[in-house]
Amino acid sequence: MLSDTAAIVIIGDEILSGKFVEENAAYLIPALRELGVSLRRIEVIPDSLEDIAETIRRLSARHDHVFTSGGVGPTHDDMTMEGVARAFGSKLRRHAELEQLLRAFYGGRLTERNLRMADVPDGAALILSDHSFWPVTQVRNVYILPGVPALFRRKFDSIRERFRARPFCATRVYCAAEEGNIAAYLDEVVAAFPQVSIGSYPRFDTPDFRVIVTLESKDAEAVERARKALVTSLPDGIVVRVE
Amino acid sequence: MLSDTAAIVIIGDEILSGKFVEENAAYLIPALRELGVSLRRIEVIPDSLEDIAETIRRLSARHDHVFTSGGVGPTHDDMTMEGVARAFGSKLRRHAELEQLLRAFYGGRLTERNLRMADVPDGAALILSDHSFWPVTQVRNVYILPGVPALFRRKFDSIRERFRARPFCATRVYCAAEEGNIAAYLDEVVAAFPQVSIGSYPRFDTPDFRVIVTLESKDAEAVERARKALVTSLPDGIVVRVE
Repeated sequence: MLSDTAAIVIIGDEILSGKFVEENAAYLIPALRELGVSLRRIEVIPDSLEDIAETIRRLSARHDHVFTSGGVGPTHDDMTMEGVARAFGSKLRRHAELEQLLRAFYGGRLTERNLRMADVPDGAALILSDHSFWPVTQVRNVYILPGVPALFRRKFDSIRERFRARPFCATRVYCAAEEGNIAAYLDEVVAAFPQVSIGSYPRFDTPDFRVIVTLESKDAEAVERARKALVTSLPDGIVVRVE
Repeated sequence: MLSDTAAIVIIGDEILSGKFVEENAAYLIPALRELGVSLRRIEVIPDSLEDIAETIRRLSARHDHVFTSGGVGPTHDDMTMEGVARAFGSKLRRHAELEQLLRAFYGGRLTERNLRMADVPDGAALILSDHSFWPVTQVRNVYILPGVPALFRRKFDSIRERFRARPFCATRVYCAAEEGNIAAYLDEVVAAFPQVSIGSYPRFDTPDFRVIVTLESKDAEAVERARKALVTSLPDGIVVRVE
């Protein structure tokens, strides 16, 4: 039903253990939204081959695009490439083009371990950009991005226009009533406008409203009609404002 | 192998669509850490019965504790209770004690829809506390918490001491070298101290170091020995400081 769906996989013990605060999903959420991509799932998982393989396999099958963050360096805890290969029943292969890039970049400082970064799943595509010497690795619908936030953002920005889709249209209705008192009115609008996604969010610390109702769709006209239907149906004095 | 493991399930279209910033996993990460609980997975999923049921079933089987956030109000988009029931092949049942609490709380303002909040999975346990009139619902190893951040924090704090476990011990070694140059030294320490979890995190915007190595375990003495082994093995001039 939904098109242009996406999932994010954050690979990193350091996030789960609270050593570093998660920044990459936080960056992608508004970026995907602006692109018109429906983000449907975020999973933060440990540095574990089995976890990576199982997660990638499951999410790749159910979404149009999967973005991974982390686990792509030369040390023992960098397992993303092998995990993605395992997800698809393939193997790692040293990529000649990546090896050449690494040799040129490191020169005399190159270590054997640096070359691990040239090992990518068999059949991977490289996405080159003008903004970076190092390409993004793509395996089927999985885009493998680095975990260091500054690099993650630069890499994602270099490929972001590939994902541009029809934009979302959204509106908010602020209500001075408890959720229990507007639930039945919401049900009617939900039933009448199946193409509009409607959310109800109570707030307990605001002076003038108690619930934010959000209406959204890629069909701007449907959002407008659903909003009108809701505002018209609610008893007088409940709608505080519409944004 | 790991004991006292946990997973977090954030249920909410509003997080995935960027309407609201995620606050509840962000609150639980350091809280679980402080308790000595090993957080192994966070999933942010949509308001969908199938997604909730599949996720809860999978994560409940693989972790000691599962915490959910969101989807527990009286409106159409509140599906957590039914999703958890479906995860375990059970049904919702109106809980007499919860119904009584709702009738007392709302009095004359009670609507039929408010009573939906008394419908919990068959066999659910209620955890009462002195700090709130409303209990936390527990189904097997799943703790169902509200999505509104202020309520989420209050509810979790009311049950947090149930989860206290042996504390973590962690240390950091800051290195003035690229990851490729320390990878082989790390491998040796990783192999010698299987009970210590070792992470390597490159940084590109710091003047005096290039990699943060973290060592952690519940065995404080093992962390200390692993740290000594690493610092001793690294060539002179690489270790900038230890925290």
